[in-house]
Amino acid sequence: LCEHQEKQIGFPGTRDYSPKQMAIRERVFTAIINCFKRHGAEVIDTPVFELKETLTGKYGEDSKLIYDLKDQGGELLSLRYDLTVPFARYLAMNKITNIKRYHIAKVYRRDNPAMTRGRYREFYQCDFDIAGQFDPMIPDAECLKIVHEILSDLQLGDFLIKVNDRRILDGMFAVCGVPDSKFRTICSSVDKLDKVPWEEVKNEMVGEKGLSPEAADRIGEYVQLHGGLDLIEQLLQDPKLSQNKLAKEGLGDMKLLFEYLTLFGITGKISFDLSLARGLDYYTGVIYEAVLLQQQNDHVEDPVSVGSVAGGGRYDGLVGMFDPKGRKVPCVGVSIGIERIFSILEQRVEASEEKIRTTETQVLVASAQKKLLEERLKLISELWDAGIKAEILYKKNPKLLNQLQYCEETGIPLVAIVGEQELKDGVVKLRDVATREEVNIRRENLIEEIRMRTSQL
Amino acid sequence: LCEHQEKQIGFPGTRDYSPKQMAIRERVFTAIINCFKRHGAEVIDTPVFELKETLTGKYGEDSKLIYDLKDQGGELLSLRYDLTVPFARYLAMNKITNIKRYHIAKVYRRDNPAMTRGRYREFYQCDFDIAGQFDPMIPDAECLKIVHEILSDLQLGDFLIKVNDRRILDGMFAVCGVPDSKFRTICSSVDKLDKVPWEEVKNEMVGEKGLSPEAADRIGEYVQLHGGLDLIEQLLQDPKLSQNKLAKEGLGDMKLLFEYLTLFGITGKISFDLSLARGLDYYTGVIYEAVLLQQQNDHVEDPVSVGSVAGGGRYDGLVGMFDPKGRKVPCVGVSIGIERIFSILEQRVEASEEKIRTTETQVLVASAQKKLLEERLKLISELWDAGIKAEILYKKNPKLLNQLQYCEETGIPLVAIVGEQELKDGVVKLRDVATREEVNIRRENLIEEIRMRTSQL
Repeated sequence: LCEHQEKQIGFPGTRDYSPKQMAIRERVFTAIINCFKRHGAEVIDTPVFELKETLTGKYGEDSKLIYDLKDQGGELLSLRYDLTVPFARYLAMNKITNIKRYHIAKVYRRDNPAMTRGRYREFYQCDFDIAGQFDPMIPDAECLKIVHEILSDLQLGDFLIKVNDRRILDGMFAVCGVPDSKFRTICSSVDKLDKVPWEEVKNEMVGEKGLSPEAADRIGEYVQLHGGLDLIEQLLQDPKLSQNKLAKEGLGDMKLLFEYLTLFGITGKISFDLSLARGLDYYTGVIYEAVLLQQQNDHVEDPVSVGSVAGGGRYDGLVGMFDPKGRKVPCVGVSIGIERIFSILEQRVEASEEKIRTTETQVLVASAQKKLLEERLKLISELWDAGIKAEILYKKNPKLLNQLQYCEETGIPLVAIVGEQELKDGVVKLRDVATREEVNIRRENLIEEIRMRTSQL
Repeated sequence: LCEHQEKQIGFPGTRDYSPKQMAIRERVFTAIINCFKRHGAEVIDTPVFELKETLTGKYGEDSKLIYDLKDQGGELLSLRYDLTVPFARYLAMNKITNIKRYHIAKVYRRDNPAMTRGRYREFYQCDFDIAGQFDPMIPDAECLKIVHEILSDLQLGDFLIKVNDRRILDGMFAVCGVPDSKFRTICSSVDKLDKVPWEEVKNEMVGEKGLSPEAADRIGEYVQLHGGLDLIEQLLQDPKLSQNKLAKEGLGDMKLLFEYLTLFGITGKISFDLSLARGLDYYTGVIYEAVLLQQQNDHVEDPVSVGSVAGGGRYDGLVGMFDPKGRKVPCVGVSIGIERIFSILEQRVEASEEKIRTTETQVLVASAQKKLLEERLKLISELWDAGIKAEILYKKNPKLLNQLQYCEETGIPLVAIVGEQELKDGVVKLRDVATREEVNIRRENLIEEIRMRTSQL
């Protein structure tokens, strides 16, 4: 399969989707869209490019990955980097203060593609966001419920949703002695902890970013903590953190969040994790990331993460950046990363040798003798007009064997065969491809018979 | 509505889709996808950008409208201009010689946007194509049947599908005395006949493109011809055209096409029209374009075209341009232009005051008293897990009136009300928003009751 995938890459970092891949992709989209609709979301769409200035200053260190369009006269444009910033621009531009929407579309990043890890320069995001001034943590809890529902539905195996809060991180940085001006850049370093070991992150903080080794060590102690309500209670009693206003606010909300998640019955898969940072600049409150877990081969060690499949958080300041008067609209949302999920399901289909149909054709209109093209065209036209999914071979005089073989290959369950005798008798021979049984059906009953036979499929 | 649309434009030539617009858009897509699937098409997807060289030399005079990405290191990339060239590139790259596929995606043109005419710089195309070596005109006829089915299904009013053939055009140019080297550029001029009068087109041919006035006048006589089988027969007898090999081939195939279209019963809406040229370089055989017709106010004159909504044709040489050995794969296809169709349907919805729901929520989980947030969260979690589409207001203590009002506004048909007494009795009060009837349902029967009540909607 991997070889096959490679062949389909137009140039590094993008790929075409073959009909078989599309069939798998549609299954994933259906599960995700069903979940978003179950939670009452509307749907919107925005252009693939935005004014360059719209994206500027929203993504921190990742801004270098934005694709710009060539200046061919007119506005300077960039391809969207995510769906969150266009959503915020949309809310501000249309003065919408209250909406729950989903948006499924491709986003673009000038990343070094690592296709084996399921990363591409063009990839889908499936975003669900709730905008509006509401009572604390109720929409935030719903976003986590949504991630839990989707990952359970798709049966991707074990998963874990890590949760943290930007205010807890900032409070932690403050009490560890990080100067205010370095909060964002130190946060970017912490964000790398899921990929590189602590020592390397510490080196970056101290060496590149000029943090004192003592401050870094204090951070090092906090970021190894993870747990549930117990840990939240413990940190609310922490002599340093509890004195910090931001951290206290964040921890209070985290406690409320866990209470709601308990009511939803999903705390078993949620971990409050102080090492979770998320790189984007615009988060202001709770943040989260879902990772798939894989049992190690020896089954002794803990399962390890095989990569992030969803992430999100609260961004209360972003809409205000696009409003002329700076009016804020609090938002919280989640983005499902489809590519890794898709890769897993694709591998699973290959391994199981499951046969995936790439069309929904119910019947092939065939002929047993030569010179019956006109009759085939007349019959198929009747079927199409009645809403039946039907095909013919595009040959004047196809062999019956070739027509039957086409059905076997593509999974078409029925063949409607016209022949001289059938035409005289006013019937069509209907053949069941699987059982090879054939019966003559009166022409006026054919449509009903095909509907009846294919409704159980 | 137009004002509303204007507000939603991020910058000239693109637009956001609001939830209401998306609901209309989904209806149109569903009708089109159903038709493509009825004809046995698979679906593929390709990246939004292609290598710049892939698009070069495929679009004739329109090439200047291609959007290029900025050179930020790496390959030179352009946004796709249509879905046909990426399809041909996909076939050649994957050595596919036989496929029937559809592809629905956005394409990009640096056009002067005329939004009132439903033209944008970013817009959807819905393409259906048949690739493979087949007997003449059978796939071509199916493409026209598809256009006929979709435009009939969408109930857009009267329409006409104009048909011509590049070989007939080239033969006509030859017998009119156009030098070979000017065929393409004269063809581009003819393509403008649906927008500007003949005199202007003639001036362009003679003045800008250096054609002799006599040759232009001879073209002028042919391009006013349109009709059906009669006209084809007449031109097959035309003393000049009938001597030209290309024209004769084209006319022979046109005759066959009309025979198949007669079997499909759709010739009433098809016009063989010698003025139809279509600007793109890659067509090699039959070409077609569907226009919507509008009755003039006085109802005396013929109905006039209000714009093209679909177009396509045969392009037998395009795939070979991407194959290292130049191996050809004959193709024919059609592209449905969704934006104009969408505008028409949107205006119709506005005029009819039809209320369009933008969510599918079946039930709002509400409370009649304060301090019941936890109970609401528990209940809605049960409903979500059972697949019921449900919402709550994100407030700790919402007023019942506000909750009922939310249902009225958004069209939610049912309210599940929890209260102290109901909790004690093990029931939920289920309210029908339209009739205002309320009944107590035992908690264990609630899911079944909601399913039953909303299955008829």
